[in-house]
Amino acid sequence: MTHDTPMKLDSLWRGAHIATMKDGQYNVIQDAAIGVVGGRIVWLGQANDLPAYESESEHNVGGGWITPGLIDCHTHLVFGGNRAGEFEQRLNGISYQEIAQQGGGIAATVKATREETETQLVASAGRRLSRLMSDGVTTIEIKSGYGLSLESELKMLRVATTLENQFPVTIKRTCLAAHAMPVEFEDKDAYIDYLCDTVLPKVAALGMADAVDAFCEGIAFSTDQVERYFDAATSLGLPVKIHAEQLSSMGGTRMASSFKALSADHIEFIEEADAKAMANSGTVAVLLPGAFFTLKETQQPPINLLRQYGVPMAIATDANPGTSPALSLRLMMNMACTLFGLTPEEALAGVTIHAATALGIDSSHGSLEVGKVADFVCWEVESPGELSYWLGGDLLKSRVYQGERT
Amino acid sequence: MTHDTPMKLDSLWRGAHIATMKDGQYNVIQDAAIGVVGGRIVWLGQANDLPAYESESEHNVGGGWITPGLIDCHTHLVFGGNRAGEFEQRLNGISYQEIAQQGGGIAATVKATREETETQLVASAGRRLSRLMSDGVTTIEIKSGYGLSLESELKMLRVATTLENQFPVTIKRTCLAAHAMPVEFEDKDAYIDYLCDTVLPKVAALGMADAVDAFCEGIAFSTDQVERYFDAATSLGLPVKIHAEQLSSMGGTRMASSFKALSADHIEFIEEADAKAMANSGTVAVLLPGAFFTLKETQQPPINLLRQYGVPMAIATDANPGTSPALSLRLMMNMACTLFGLTPEEALAGVTIHAATALGIDSSHGSLEVGKVADFVCWEVESPGELSYWLGGDLLKSRVYQGERT
Ligand SMILES: [Zn+2]
Ligand SMILES: [Zn+2]
Repeated sequence: MTHDTPMKLDSLWRGAHIATMKDGQYNVIQDAAIGVVGGRIVWLGQANDLPAYESESEHNVGGGWITPGLIDCHTHLVFGGNRAGEFEQRLNGISYQEIAQQGGGIAATVKATREETETQLVASAGRRLSRLMSDGVTTIEIKSGYGLSLESELKMLRVATTLENQFPVTIKRTCLAAHAMPVEFEDKDAYIDYLCDTVLPKVAALGMADAVDAFCEGIAFSTDQVERYFDAATSLGLPVKIHAEQLSSMGGTRMASSFKALSADHIEFIEEADAKAMANSGTVAVLLPGAFFTLKETQQPPINLLRQYGVPMAIATDANPGTSPALSLRLMMNMACTLFGLTPEEALAGVTIHAATALGIDSSHGSLEVGKVADFVCWEVESPGELSYWLGGDLLKSRVYQGERT
Repeated sequence: MTHDTPMKLDSLWRGAHIATMKDGQYNVIQDAAIGVVGGRIVWLGQANDLPAYESESEHNVGGGWITPGLIDCHTHLVFGGNRAGEFEQRLNGISYQEIAQQGGGIAATVKATREETETQLVASAGRRLSRLMSDGVTTIEIKSGYGLSLESELKMLRVATTLENQFPVTIKRTCLAAHAMPVEFEDKDAYIDYLCDTVLPKVAALGMADAVDAFCEGIAFSTDQVERYFDAATSLGLPVKIHAEQLSSMGGTRMASSFKALSADHIEFIEEADAKAMANSGTVAVLLPGAFFTLKETQQPPINLLRQYGVPMAIATDANPGTSPALSLRLMMNMACTLFGLTPEEALAGVTIHAATALGIDSSHGSLEVGKVADFVCWEVESPGELSYWLGGDLLKSRVYQGERT
């Protein structure tokens, strides 16, 4: 374009500093401006350097900081009922065992999720989604895994699709059929066979999932079982991710890395060889401090090992009714700093660019760069570190999704 | 009134269940109604039992639960600057010592608080206050203690007064001049003399404080020094409260109980004799889980002892820039349950009726009863336990202050 032809924009945003999060760092632009066309960033820089332009709309956000829209890359947002009653029972001294005998725990959530209609599930998950969005989330991953049958897993994935149609948010759907054992099966291998032969092929054929996930733990599925399930997923062209090494070291993370897993999540108990394997396979470490906090875990994920091997660290809510009833991703940033010792810059990278990598969408999301989707948030803060510093509190001034204020 | 004379109301509220928190328990009224005249509750019960009435306005809140307005009974909400920069430095490996050498820590806050104008302090504290209010707070205590001179302590207390005039919230002002040592003094006893001879008498004469507080700890003031300061406060007719037994056991709580202190706060290190003394003096235990969490403390307050002796437990944010940058009282409820093992019912009592007792206003605030002030909150929850269960998230549907929706 020559100086005679003004740049044509749908919208121009200015009046704040930007932490672009390019390359996982603040990469600050002071007194910045963002030009948007068709929901994408076409210009980004200091407002002083703006070329001549014409814009359909112009927004001065009036101070503060702009960051990429937050990405919550690990949630179980769709579920029937909630488990506040169990939370209250446990604190009143009822044991886990008694609660399990009453049909509580994950079994209660599976039962409620199977019983509720899609409309009911959309309504309750939609309320939770609104809360996460009002705290800055513009992209969210939602897992199935409380259905545990073809029909009800598909129902959960359809609910996620409906939510994306109803709300200004990007949703990535993950099939977590290997989450727990359904009552219909007694043998774990037989259930894995059913998933490989029936559930995954159907989910893939219908295009209902962007990835496949499994819970690899003594109380769930073995490394061998998950490996078989990942073989099936991979042969269907679906990328994998894993819940692993949360309560013990079983080798799940290393096995998942051999599948070039998008992410290994929780990973409190990984060791040096696991971190190396993740670095080699480009697998993101997804840290879930809300579950760590709620379960009063004591084994912290080995942050220094992850740093040493350059494994990107993402942070997510793990929003779920049992172990992390979390409705704020910004609170998880604070917890990642306070409980795991991340720096505020790492925490912000963990809910933006590295979270995008954990979902396989880092070429279009997760940082503010020309060509990327114009998802961003303007915050009432004087430094980006404040996003991790404050415990709670609504700091959001405006949320822009695909170039539109929402 | 006879059945011929309808009850005259300013407003009637219905359409939800109520946890009244009378006597520190849920004391539920299903399908309730609240009648308000002159900002006070004049009728409360099941909507079915309403007598004939005429009301200026009628509100159906459309489901959920109503609780008393939340009371944050321990905050340092007014301060200059913030310490997000230090938070970030520490996580980047800079030691506390280095930060102190740069003039950081509480010294930085005192310097900034002294330098800022009242207008600046009102603006920043007002933003924090709005966040606490949007999470359900209708009464808040605000301490001085970052001035540490007559002039600047009075400035902080004036800021608190101004905030009450600007926002629909009740504010209780506490003079915490014995918080830390100002640079002008080298000798702690000399500073205590100054407080007893100059600061407290002036604060009392001007009617600028509802109570007097001190930080009794090795790093602050000794039990003997605080006792002298409490003697002065008491002789001026001001009730006392104390920061005590947070990091060690120094006998501050027992000493404060001998003054019939309104509350002893933090108290991680109290022992059986302290709990007994608190029970005898009617002193409330104020638990501050935000500071416990942020400082990664490991010594929990002895909840079972407090229960055993019937010491009422309140919960507060301790909102302050160094050790608890907390902007959500509801989050503190979750932390009190998760970190200290309180039940959700105890947590709700801790931010309502027991918090009112900690401020000496339990005859008018803290529970929903006929004759009390009509401060209440309607929540989008299916049980009052959900208020403690969810980690973050905006659950508030409407906030009613002195009978008016705000
Ligand atoms: Zn999970
Ligand atoms: Zn305090």
